[in-house]
Amino acid sequence: MSQLGNGPGPNNTPPPLPDGGLRVVALGGIGEVGRNMTVFEYEGRLLIVDCGVLFPEDAQPGVDLILPDFRAIESRLDEVEAIVLTHGHEDHIGAVPFLLRMRPDLPVYGSRFTLALLAAKCKEHRQRPTLVEVKEGERRGLGAFEVEFFAVNHSIPDALAVAIRTPAGLVLHTGDIKLDQLPLDGRLTDLAGFSRLGDEGVDLLCVDSTNAEVPGFVTPEREIGPVLDDVIATVSQRVIVACFASHVHRVQQVLDAAVKHGKRVAFVGRSMVRNMNIAAELGLLTIPEGLLIDLDEAVNLPETKVLFVSTGSQGEPLSALSRMARGEHRQISIKAGDTVVLASSLIPGNENAVFGVINGLVRLGANVVHQGNAKVHVSGHASAGELLFLYNAIRPSNVMPVHGEWRHLRANAELAVRTGVAEENVVLAEDGVVVDLVDGKATTTGRVEVGYVYVDGLSVGDVGESTLSDRLVLGEGGFIAINVVVDSATGRAVSPPTVSGRGFSDDPKALDAAVALVEMELSRTEAEGITDTHRIAQAVRRVVGRWVAETYRRRPMIVPTVIPV
Amino acid sequence: MSQLGNGPGPNNTPPPLPDGGLRVVALGGIGEVGRNMTVFEYEGRLLIVDCGVLFPEDAQPGVDLILPDFRAIESRLDEVEAIVLTHGHEDHIGAVPFLLRMRPDLPVYGSRFTLALLAAKCKEHRQRPTLVEVKEGERRGLGAFEVEFFAVNHSIPDALAVAIRTPAGLVLHTGDIKLDQLPLDGRLTDLAGFSRLGDEGVDLLCVDSTNAEVPGFVTPEREIGPVLDDVIATVSQRVIVACFASHVHRVQQVLDAAVKHGKRVAFVGRSMVRNMNIAAELGLLTIPEGLLIDLDEAVNLPETKVLFVSTGSQGEPLSALSRMARGEHRQISIKAGDTVVLASSLIPGNENAVFGVINGLVRLGANVVHQGNAKVHVSGHASAGELLFLYNAIRPSNVMPVHGEWRHLRANAELAVRTGVAEENVVLAEDGVVVDLVDGKATTTGRVEVGYVYVDGLSVGDVGESTLSDRLVLGEGGFIAINVVVDSATGRAVSPPTVSGRGFSDDPKALDAAVALVEMELSRTEAEGITDTHRIAQAVRRVVGRWVAETYRRRPMIVPTVIPV
Repeated sequence: MSQLGNGPGPNNTPPPLPDGGLRVVALGGIGEVGRNMTVFEYEGRLLIVDCGVLFPEDAQPGVDLILPDFRAIESRLDEVEAIVLTHGHEDHIGAVPFLLRMRPDLPVYGSRFTLALLAAKCKEHRQRPTLVEVKEGERRGLGAFEVEFFAVNHSIPDALAVAIRTPAGLVLHTGDIKLDQLPLDGRLTDLAGFSRLGDEGVDLLCVDSTNAEVPGFVTPEREIGPVLDDVIATVSQRVIVACFASHVHRVQQVLDAAVKHGKRVAFVGRSMVRNMNIAAELGLLTIPEGLLIDLDEAVNLPETKVLFVSTGSQGEPLSALSRMARGEHRQISIKAGDTVVLASSLIPGNENAVFGVINGLVRLGANVVHQGNAKVHVSGHASAGELLFLYNAIRPSNVMPVHGEWRHLRANAELAVRTGVAEENVVLAEDGVVVDLVDGKATTTGRVEVGYVYVDGLSVGDVGESTLSDRLVLGEGGFIAINVVVDSATGRAVSPPTVSGRGFSDDPKALDAAVALVEMELSRTEAEGITDTHRIAQAVRRVVGRWVAETYRRRPMIVPTVIPV
Repeated sequence: MSQLGNGPGPNNTPPPLPDGGLRVVALGGIGEVGRNMTVFEYEGRLLIVDCGVLFPEDAQPGVDLILPDFRAIESRLDEVEAIVLTHGHEDHIGAVPFLLRMRPDLPVYGSRFTLALLAAKCKEHRQRPTLVEVKEGERRGLGAFEVEFFAVNHSIPDALAVAIRTPAGLVLHTGDIKLDQLPLDGRLTDLAGFSRLGDEGVDLLCVDSTNAEVPGFVTPEREIGPVLDDVIATVSQRVIVACFASHVHRVQQVLDAAVKHGKRVAFVGRSMVRNMNIAAELGLLTIPEGLLIDLDEAVNLPETKVLFVSTGSQGEPLSALSRMARGEHRQISIKAGDTVVLASSLIPGNENAVFGVINGLVRLGANVVHQGNAKVHVSGHASAGELLFLYNAIRPSNVMPVHGEWRHLRANAELAVRTGVAEENVVLAEDGVVVDLVDGKATTTGRVEVGYVYVDGLSVGDVGESTLSDRLVLGEGGFIAINVVVDSATGRAVSPPTVSGRGFSDDPKALDAAVALVEMELSRTEAEGITDTHRIAQAVRRVVGRWVAETYRRRPMIVPTVIPV
């Protein structure tokens, strides 16, 4: 029977994994874009591929990060052989320190650049993890699992796909992938290697779904360089290029253009400075002697002699670029005729912030060059045409789309079917859905609970749905506090009650009329001999809540406090 | 001198308008998309074109609507000759009732459909405005202004452009406009009329900027019909089409397809039902006898015999479509194989909500057809190619881009210049910037204050920036309330202090450690003889604030209440 279009999957507790079977469960990254983490289980042993974070949306106010839900493996951490990382983006490595807190000796496998970024992150967490560097072409035995690494092309250097061999079969996990046939560093996605795996027989393909809805092919990264070069060649004033702080190849193209047009370069933004240092140390970024200067020096050079490479391309409100757009940057004041290039994608959900920055810059007179009006960015994820190449090279028996929202997963599944994968062998398994590969056939057999785990400030997990739902109420309507001091023996108010609001109204008299209502209600509760502070609190909450709804038609949180003395 | 790229414009109070000059000020709609309202002044008399609302964004939590800022004309309402409406969208008519509250007898001019929508709105406000119906081709003397109306094509029937003649010159305001050359109702944008105005000499053109960044031409509306027809022809289960409740022509195409494929139709959503009734009554929508059924009846018909036309295409959380996507709709449960068509644009800022709905529907197994994967929507605003036709037909002496964010205004200005309008005659004037047309030349001469006016529930204007900034803080971090009762004579705490949070943590013990700190601080203030409740409150706020920042690295609002007894 087809497993496509069957809704969100089973809800039962998964049955025991049959002997010789392989179990796959995503604890994040399927049904959402971010916090990628896939757990493989064979004969009681576990292998983790990636462990990233998700950035919060409007429904998760005030939260810094969202982690994969580790509960399903929390009691089994001793059975984990290793974490294998496909590449160094936050949504693939960002949650590693949180997992290491629970098992510090867990070995982490990854490529050189990936591990360098992870090491910098772990240092901030004061951790010294066991890092094992691997390269494309290598095979490693990781306990019950034999793992082989393949070069893949993505928007960060040194990305890997991971093939996992057990007696249950051969699984290939692509990680994030595209098939740029003219990559800047010459490091192609290893389609030949994948074809060889296909000859051997791939039992399950876990494949990046991000751009499955997009027809055709991603433009080669190489075509961005000349566009950037043209822009930089023609500017007659200051130029600022914003891009992702991990997109080393994009930065290289900007540096090359700067050199060609006689400009020196300053990096702006902590993560840009840090990552480009790492990339340069590892030989992934070539910075000619004398090209780089620091920001303080740069702002004193003639405008035409310097180029700024900045973070902030997603409209992050505290970034240097946002501050420039608001005219609040300490060192750089945008003026008419300046040029700002956003050499970056627009991550869904950031539209308002990014357009806010663009509008702010345009308002100050800058020319803003971005994806919408020039070819200054291409995606790092395979479009539909490339995915077809992958399917046809790998010829998998079973397919499990990963890395994407439901609309992406479904589109990817349809591509698989069009290349000849049997519909009943394509599993749409969101986070927590258990996929068992038994006798060469993948099926969803149950579900483990996967919730959101929030990091807010220093703590993990103490902010949950109840706190977030309070924040949503407070953020929409503020609150009204009612304070009452009563005689504990008689329930009589011993001082006048106060009614005050925050986030409710700018009008200082807005709540004046409520005080009399509270006083009347307190007379009533006293007359009825009510001394229980909880009951008194409920009574005043009720009258004030009703009054506010009728008078203002709003729903602030009503917070009564009744103190007995 | 060029007025392009000169930043946001002057900040001075505008000088008196010279005799014989015409003044133009937008109180909304320029530098933003929404709340369009332009005020024209000649010899002490005022004319208002449009009076719409803006829908709030993340930075304006809890607010229902944002109005244009009427302050600049509040004391001069007696000098207003009339409001002229270009069309019936909310961002052009939604604020009329709020202006009428201040001057109920102000006459409102507009086309038949526009006024019908306004009348329905005013009825909800219990207003009986003076409505004067006008048609394309008509000329009217409105006091000091002679006004002529022109048919324009947009995503709502019966839209008008407005030419305003005074001795100061001829101004043409396009309203929202596109140049569909094969419009469904045969009602073309009157380019011939605009050409005639051009012959006469247009001194100032106020022109829609929404799609100025988009190259080329908007696909004719007529090409949507066959796509919708194809989708509806091939579905074998339930089909739901969501679109804007004012897009009568789009709904007509859906109805036509329903008739052709033997389906009856139910409207879902209050505004859809209301607007389509109005459109049918005015002969703008043709509903064959017996086609419409109500929702209760529709859900009992065989699935293939009914088509639902629904609101909710922007992912509004309370809409019927959102409830279906969450599996919470009372009457319609989406199941695998159902089809949902979003025949609508994706308004910037709504991406998360819309993709949330799409993912929810896909997760339940529905096939979702939308702008991203099929040609089921076209914009109602002229792309760059069409704007060039407008400029070349009208040949204006001066141009003032309207209806758009800064990036749109700038793009539109550049188009004007490319058609030969002198750069110094293109004015980029955001809300509040005063443009004076004197001796045939438009210049920005000053600025009046234009802020956001918020409607929240029943009140207008009592929610301002201070309340919103409190809401943002509360929404991000919740609050911690500290309650202390002190002896008013000694400043001594007469009951144990309480420290409690909302929106701060799910952990009931999260704040336990703060109580002791408050007690210590109260001992200190008492020892120092401090009895002033305000000072005591500040002291406990300080210690708790510092403790929370250090312990949690969060910034909740700290709300101390010190009650003297």
